Amino acid sequence: MSTRITSLFGIRYPIIQGGMIWCSGWRLAAAVSHAGGLGLIGAGSMYPGVLREHLRKLKAATDKPFGVNVPLLYPQTDELMQIILEEKVPIVFTSAGNPAKYTPLLQDHGIRVAHVVPSAKLAVKCEKAGVDAVVAEGFEAGGHNGREETTTMTLLPMVRDLISTPLIAAGGIASGRAMLAAFALGAEGVQIGSLFAASEESSAHPAFKQRIVEAGEGDTMLSLKELVPVRLLRNTFYVKVKEMEARAASKEELQDLLGHGRAKKGMFEGDMDEGELEIGQVSAQISAVRPVVEIMQWLVNDFQKAKEGLISDI
Amino acid sequence: MSTRITSLFGIRYPIIQGGMIWCSGWRLAAAVSHAGGLGLIGAGSMYPGVLREHLRKLKAATDKPFGVNVPLLYPQTDELMQIILEEKVPIVFTSAGNPAKYTPLLQDHGIRVAHVVPSAKLAVKCEKAGVDAVVAEGFEAGGHNGREETTTMTLLPMVRDLISTPLIAAGGIASGRAMLAAFALGAEGVQIGSLFAASEESSAHPAFKQRIVEAGEGDTMLSLKELVPVRLLRNTFYVKVKEMEARAASKEELQDLLGHGRAKKGMFEGDMDEGELEIGQVSAQISAVRPVVEIMQWLVNDFQKAKEGLISDI
Repeated sequence: MSTRITSLFGIRYPIIQGGMIWCSGWRLAAAVSHAGGLGLIGAGSMYPGVLREHLRKLKAATDKPFGVNVPLLYPQTDELMQIILEEKVPIVFTSAGNPAKYTPLLQDHGIRVAHVVPSAKLAVKCEKAGVDAVVAEGFEAGGHNGREETTTMTLLPMVRDLISTPLIAAGGIASGRAMLAAFALGAEGVQIGSLFAASEESSAHPAFKQRIVEAGEGDTMLSLKELVPVRLLRNTFYVKVKEMEARAASKEELQDLLGHGRAKKGMFEGDMDEGELEIGQVSAQISAVRPVVEIMQWLVNDFQKAKEGLISDI
Repeated sequence: MSTRITSLFGIRYPIIQGGMIWCSGWRLAAAVSHAGGLGLIGAGSMYPGVLREHLRKLKAATDKPFGVNVPLLYPQTDELMQIILEEKVPIVFTSAGNPAKYTPLLQDHGIRVAHVVPSAKLAVKCEKAGVDAVVAEGFEAGGHNGREETTTMTLLPMVRDLISTPLIAAGGIASGRAMLAAFALGAEGVQIGSLFAASEESSAHPAFKQRIVEAGEGDTMLSLKELVPVRLLRNTFYVKVKEMEARAASKEELQDLLGHGRAKKGMFEGDMDEGELEIGQVSAQISAVRPVVEIMQWLVNDFQKAKEGLISDI
C-alpha cells in the first residue's frame, strides 16, 4: 500500500483521518498517526490557544507524522497559521478557501500542504497554487461541501484526468472496499471522517457517537445550502431548517436559527435535538464505536480482502 | 469479465445499457447487445403499439440477448407486460414501483427479472420478491431517483451486505475505471445510461446529444423533488423550476409548469430551452458522440487498463 501519498507524508498506510470540528483533537490524531495513518487536528473549532495546547499534547504523545486541518473561513486563520509555524507542524490540510493564500508561506517553512476541494475546477486551481496533494471530496461527505453536488464516484475520475498532483479521495469511504474503489478511480490515498468521528478516541460527545452508530440510510441530508452547504443528521434542529427552507425563508432567518455554537452544542456537548450534527452519508454503514487501532487494522484487512476478491473475480 | 451477471443474461460483458425514455429504442439496444453487452429498450416513453414495433425490429436485428425496461408508474403497464409476454422478451428490468407486482408473472414465463432501486431497504424488498438481479442506482444517476440521495459509493456496499442476489451498479459510471470501482464495491455488473444516451445509435435528438457532450461539472441537479425526483440539465425550463422551488411553489404549480410531454420536447424533439433534459452527473465526463461498438471496446479496454494499473500500484 505504498503510494505517492505514503511517501509524501512519510506514513505507512495511505489513510488520512479527516480534520473535523469538535471530533478530532490531539487524542484522535495521535491514535491514527500511531496506527500508521495520518492524524489531523481539526482546527476549525479551536481558538488559537486551544490549537497550541492540542499540538503540544499531540507532539508529546507521538513521534509519527501528523497534521492540522484549517478551514480558511474563520477570522482567526492568520493566528492559527502562526501557531502552526511556531509549533513546527509538518503537514497542513486547508479547506473552504483559496489554496493560493497560505500554500507558499507554509511550504517556505518546509510544510507539506494539501487542499480539500469539491470540484475538478478547484482541483486545477490547487495544482496551480502548487499544493503537494489535493483532496477531492464528494457530495456524500459530512462537513462543508460544494454547490455542484458532485459525488465521489463522478468527481474522482474528472479530477484525475485534469491534474497530476497526488490525489486523495474523500466522501463515502468507511471500508476497505470503498478505499479500493477510490484507488480504482485514480486516488492514491483516502481521507476518512465519519468512521473516526465515531471512534473511541474522537472528542465527540458519546451521545453523538451513538447517533452515528444508529444512523440509517437517508438519515443525513445536504442542508443549509443558502448559507454554507453542510451534511446534517436528521433531528429537531434539522426539521426546523427544512421547515424554513420549505417556506422559502430568507438567509437572515436561517442564519438567526443557526445562531452561534450549534455544532458545539450537538457534536461536543451532546444535545441531540437542538445541536447541529455534521456527519457523512456513510454513517449508515458504521455499526460500533471502536478504538482507532481496531478501525485501522480492519480497514487494512478489508482492503486486502477486497483487492484479492476483485482480482480473482474478474 | 465473466460474473453471475454475464451468466444470468448470457452476455459477454457485464455491461447493461440502461433503458432510458426517448433515447433507447431498438437501434441502440441492438447495437449494445451486438457488441456483447445487454441492450434494453426503454418502454417508459412508448405506447404499447410502439413497444411492439421496436421489439419486432430489435428481434430482426439481433439474435443476442436483449431486454426491456418498464417503469411501473404508468397506467399502461399491464398492456406493456402483455406485449412483452407475446413477443417473448427474455429479460425485463422494472423500476419505480413494487418489484413483487410483476416478477412472478414474468418469471412464470421464463423471463429473467431485474429491478432498479435507489436504497438498500428496497434492495431487500427485491430479494424477497425473488428478482434475478438488483440494480442499485446512486444519486448521481440521470432519470428517476430516490429521496434518500444515497450515492453509488455509499449505496453499493450497503446493498452488498444485505442481499446475495446478483448486483448491478448504476449511477456515475461512464468509464472502465468507474466499472472497476463498482466491482470493488461489490457489484457484478454495471448499468450505463448517459454514455449510451449520447451514442450515435441513441434515438435522442442530435441537439440533446450535443448538450450532453458540452455539459460540464455542476450542470445537472436532482430536481422536482416535490413531484418525482429527476436529475436535470440546466436550461430555461430548469431555471423556471428552481425559481418556483425558491418561492416554495405548490406541487400543483410545479405540475402545471411540467405539463405533459416536456421530456419528449427536449430529449426527442430537441428543444434545449423548454424541454426537460434528464441525464446523469457523469455527462460532465462525456466528450464525444460515438458509435456503440467504439464505446463498448473503449469501456472494456479502459477497464482492463484500470485493473492492471490497480494491481501494480497497490
